Amino acid sequence: MNYTDFDNTVAWKKLKALSGEAGQKHTHFDFAAKLTAERIKNCTIPMAGDLYYNWAARPVDEPILEALQSLADEQEVIVKYQALAEGEIMNTGEKRRVLHHLLRGQLGKPVIHEGKDLGEFYRNELKRFSGFAEAVRSGAICGASGKTFRNAVQIGIGGSDLGPRAMCLALDNWAVKKGKKKLDAFFISNVDPDDASAVISSVDLSQTIFVLVSKSGTTQETLANELFVKDKLAKAGLDSGKHMVAVTSETSPLARNPAYLDSFYIDDFIGGRYSSTSAAGGVILSLAFGPEVFAEFLAGARDADRGTLEKDIQKNAALLDALIGVWERNFLGYPGTAVLPYSQALSRFPAHLQQLDMESNGKRVNRFGVELKYATGPVVFGEPGTNGQHSFYQMLHQGTDIVPLQFVGFQNSQCGDDVEVDGSISQTKLKANLAAQIVAFAKGKNDGDKNKLFPGGRPSSLIHGKELNPAALGSLLAHFENKVMFQGFVWNLNSFDQEGVQLGKILTRKVLAGNSEDSALDAYSALLGI
Amino acid sequence: MNYTDFDNTVAWKKLKALSGEAGQKHTHFDFAAKLTAERIKNCTIPMAGDLYYNWAARPVDEPILEALQSLADEQEVIVKYQALAEGEIMNTGEKRRVLHHLLRGQLGKPVIHEGKDLGEFYRNELKRFSGFAEAVRSGAICGASGKTFRNAVQIGIGGSDLGPRAMCLALDNWAVKKGKKKLDAFFISNVDPDDASAVISSVDLSQTIFVLVSKSGTTQETLANELFVKDKLAKAGLDSGKHMVAVTSETSPLARNPAYLDSFYIDDFIGGRYSSTSAAGGVILSLAFGPEVFAEFLAGARDADRGTLEKDIQKNAALLDALIGVWERNFLGYPGTAVLPYSQALSRFPAHLQQLDMESNGKRVNRFGVELKYATGPVVFGEPGTNGQHSFYQMLHQGTDIVPLQFVGFQNSQCGDDVEVDGSISQTKLKANLAAQIVAFAKGKNDGDKNKLFPGGRPSSLIHGKELNPAALGSLLAHFENKVMFQGFVWNLNSFDQEGVQLGKILTRKVLAGNSEDSALDAYSALLGI
Repeated sequence: MNYTDFDNTVAWKKLKALSGEAGQKHTHFDFAAKLTAERIKNCTIPMAGDLYYNWAARPVDEPILEALQSLADEQEVIVKYQALAEGEIMNTGEKRRVLHHLLRGQLGKPVIHEGKDLGEFYRNELKRFSGFAEAVRSGAICGASGKTFRNAVQIGIGGSDLGPRAMCLALDNWAVKKGKKKLDAFFISNVDPDDASAVISSVDLSQTIFVLVSKSGTTQETLANELFVKDKLAKAGLDSGKHMVAVTSETSPLARNPAYLDSFYIDDFIGGRYSSTSAAGGVILSLAFGPEVFAEFLAGARDADRGTLEKDIQKNAALLDALIGVWERNFLGYPGTAVLPYSQALSRFPAHLQQLDMESNGKRVNRFGVELKYATGPVVFGEPGTNGQHSFYQMLHQGTDIVPLQFVGFQNSQCGDDVEVDGSISQTKLKANLAAQIVAFAKGKNDGDKNKLFPGGRPSSLIHGKELNPAALGSLLAHFENKVMFQGFVWNLNSFDQEGVQLGKILTRKVLAGNSEDSALDAYSALLGI
Repeated sequence: MNYTDFDNTVAWKKLKALSGEAGQKHTHFDFAAKLTAERIKNCTIPMAGDLYYNWAARPVDEPILEALQSLADEQEVIVKYQALAEGEIMNTGEKRRVLHHLLRGQLGKPVIHEGKDLGEFYRNELKRFSGFAEAVRSGAICGASGKTFRNAVQIGIGGSDLGPRAMCLALDNWAVKKGKKKLDAFFISNVDPDDASAVISSVDLSQTIFVLVSKSGTTQETLANELFVKDKLAKAGLDSGKHMVAVTSETSPLARNPAYLDSFYIDDFIGGRYSSTSAAGGVILSLAFGPEVFAEFLAGARDADRGTLEKDIQKNAALLDALIGVWERNFLGYPGTAVLPYSQALSRFPAHLQQLDMESNGKRVNRFGVELKYATGPVVFGEPGTNGQHSFYQMLHQGTDIVPLQFVGFQNSQCGDDVEVDGSISQTKLKANLAAQIVAFAKGKNDGDKNKLFPGGRPSSLIHGKELNPAALGSLLAHFENKVMFQGFVWNLNSFDQEGVQLGKILTRKVLAGNSEDSALDAYSALLGI
C-alpha cells in the first residue's frame, strides 16, 4: 500500500483545479437550479439497517465526483480498509491493530495474534457477557441482599461513556415499547464528585449493578468513581463484590480480580471511541435491553461494514460521505460540521460523533509524524431537531460562515404515541420541519429586506429510514466510524491514537504530586484553591 | 449614538495593523514567555456572585488592549448598553425594546411604555409567580385528585427550554444539599412525540404540574406538546385546568385563559434566549427550589449587570471578554469557540450559550440591513470537563485549527460528597485537570516525536469562584448575555431578532398544508414518508 500526503496526490491537483480560486468560501454549485426532484431521487445510496444516504444537497457534480473517485482509488482507501479489518498495524503511533469491525463480523481472513484467533476471542466474550446479562435479567444473579437488579450504572469516561450512553438513550423508548427493557441504565463519568453523588442518590443501591469500564484499568476519573461507589455500597451494608462487574483488558490491574462479580475483556485493538460494539457498550446494553437486542445492533453494524467494502463511491455511503466532507473541508474551507438528528432518541449521538471524529482526525501530523500543510478533522457539534431550529440555526442560515449539515430522520416515531393537532400528528410535523430545513438551507430565499434574505448554498446530507431500531442504530454508528476512517486514509494520518490527551494528564499528575515545576501552573492552581 | 460598521472604525485599522499579515491563523503572542505567575495574578477582574474573570491566557498585550479600549469607546458600547437598559428600541428589526436587564434590577431611568412602568410590571409578575410557587410548595395548591405536586414539567422550546433547563440542572445538587428542593423539574421541548411520551411515562401525573411557556402563544412544537399532555391528563381522569399554568404575553391566545391554573406574563421586550430571568425561567425554578433561590439568582445577575456599566475595559469582565473575542474572531481568524465548565452541574450550560450567542450574533447584515464584509458570531460548542478531555480535546490540542476556550471552575463541589484516592479528593483532581489544561493549551510541549509535540498557543479564559450557587449562576448567565450584547454593538448588528428562523417555519407550514409549490420539497417529503 502507498501512503501519500493528500496534497501530494494527483487527485489533490484535480480537485484544486475544480475548486477555482484558492480559499474561496462559497461554492459555485448552484443549489437553486440543481436541487431538482430527479437529483433528490437519484443521489441516494442504500445502507444497512434499512437506511438510505441521500447526498442530493451536497455541492458536488460529475467532475467533482470523478475526481473524488480517483482520490479514493489513488489513496487505496478500500485496500487499506480491508487490510485494517484483517489485522494490519494501522495504529502506527501505538503500533496496534485496529479491530472494532471484527467485534461484529469477520470481513476477511481470521486475525491471529500471538497464536490466538481474535475474532473467536471477541465472539467468546460476547457469549460470556450475553449469558451474564441474561442471568441478571432473569433474576438468577441478584444483589447482596437478594433483590433482583433494576438499575445498571456504567462507570467510565470518554469512549466508555459517550458511545454507550448515546446508544442506551437511542434504544430506550424502542425497548420499552417492545417490552424488552428490564433495567434502567445510568452513567457516571466526570471526576467531578457531584456527578457520582447525583447518580447514586437517584437509585436504590440494593438493586443496582455497576459496570466498571476501563481498558487500561488506570483511568484516573474511573478509578476515583469506582472507590466513590464502593464507599457508598459499604455504607449501605452491601458487599461491592456482588454489585460490580469489570470491562477491561486481560493485562489490566482490574482483570481477573475476585473483587468483581465477573470480568469481560477487550484488548488494545479496540479503541475507546470505537468500543460501543465491544463489551464496553455491550454489557450495559445487554443488561438494559437484552442480549438479543445487542445482537441486532451488532448485525446492523456488520452489514454496514460489509457494504462499505464497495469501491464505487456512488454505491458506498460511508466513503462518499467521507470524500464530500474532504471536498468541503479542504477546498471549500468550511471549518465545522453539524450533526442534526430529527429524533429525540439521538439526543446524545452528536456528542458521541464529536469524540469519534475530533479525537480520530484532529491531528496535525501524518502517520509518519510529519507535519501536514492542509486542514484535517473539523469541529463537530449538534443537537436534535427541532430543538436546534430554535437555537443555533439562525447562524447556520444567516451567519457569515458556512457549516455543512448532517441530517438524520425516520418515518415513524419509536413510541408510536402521538396526537393530532391542526390536521397532522407530531411525527409528521417533525418530518415536515426536516424536509423544510434541507430545502431552506440549500435554496435560500431572496428578499428586498436583506435582513430577511436567506443566501442558501448551505449543503447538507440526509440519512433516513423507517424507524430507529437496533439494526438501524448499528448501521448509523458504523457509517460514521467508517466515514472517519476513510477521511483519515485520505488525509494520510493515524485516526487511532490520541497523543493530544497526554500532556494534560502529565501536568495534572504534577499538580497533584505538588511538584509542578511551572510557576504558571502553580498560579492557576492557587486561583482554584488547590 | 453613532452606528458604524466595525470595518469603518478607526479602531479596526489600528487592530488590523497590530495583527500583522491579513488572514494569519497563528498569533505572534508568545504564550510560553508571557504566561508568567505575575500575569496570571494581574489579569483578573472581579465579577458579581464572588466570581473572577481571568484572561491571562488570551493573546493580548498592552497595544492590543489600548486598541480594544479605543474600539469600545468609538463604538460607544457602554452608552448603547445604558440606552438599551433604559428602553431604547435596540431590536431594530422587530422595532422592540430589549429589557431583560430590567427583570433583575433598575439600571437607569424607569422605562415607561404606553403609560406603564415596565419595571413595575416585571416586579409584579415576579411577586405573583413567587406567591404561586410558594402555594404549590406548601401544598396549598394541589392537583385535581388532591395530591401535592412533586414534579414540575416545563413545555417550551428554544429559549423557553435551553436556558431554564440549564439553570435547573445547575442548581439541582445545590438545592438538595441546602434542603430547598421540593419538586423535580422536567422538560418537554421537541415536537418529536417520543420526547413528550418518555417524560410523561416517567412521572406520576396526579402529582405533576405543567408550565406551558410560549411568549407568542403560537409556537407549533409547544402547542402540539400541550395537547399531547392534555390528552394524557384526560386519559388519567385528571382535570388539566388544575395541572397547568401558562407563561406568555398578555396579547397571546394563551393569556387570561381559564383553562389554566394561572398565567404569568412576559412581553415582547424579553427575547426568548434572554428569558431565563423572567417568568419563563422563574416559574419552574421557583417551583423546584423556592422563590428565595430564584431571588438570589436574580440578584447575582443584577450585580453583574451593574458592574458591566464600567467603561474601563480592564475592569469590566463581560466587555473585555467580548472585545478579546472580536480580536480572535476578526483578526486571528478563529472560526469557533468552546465553553468548558469543570462542573457537571453546568452540563447543559454550553447548549444554552450556543443559542444565546449563535442566535444573537449569527448575522450577515448590520442593524440597517446592509451586508457585512467581516465575520460575526462564531460556532459555539462545549461539554463539561473532564469529560471533554476524553473526547474532543485531542483536536483542540493538536488539530489544524485553533479554537479559543472558555473555562469555568469552582473551588468546591456542590454536594460536598467526596472520596480520597491516591492522596487527593475528586474535587481536587477536577481542579488539577483544569489548571493543567490551561497551561498545556497555552504553552504546549516540544518533542522530537512530532506526534507527541503540542504546539501550544491555544488561548483560553477562566471564570472561577468558590462555589456554584444561585448568585454565582446569575452572574455567570449575565456575563455571557452582556458579552454577546457588546459583540453585537461592535459588529453593528441587531443581536435581538432572529429572522433566520422564519424560512424554515414557512416551508414547514407549506408541507403540512400539502401545498409546497416546490418539487424539491415534495421529493424530500416523499423520502420521509409524508
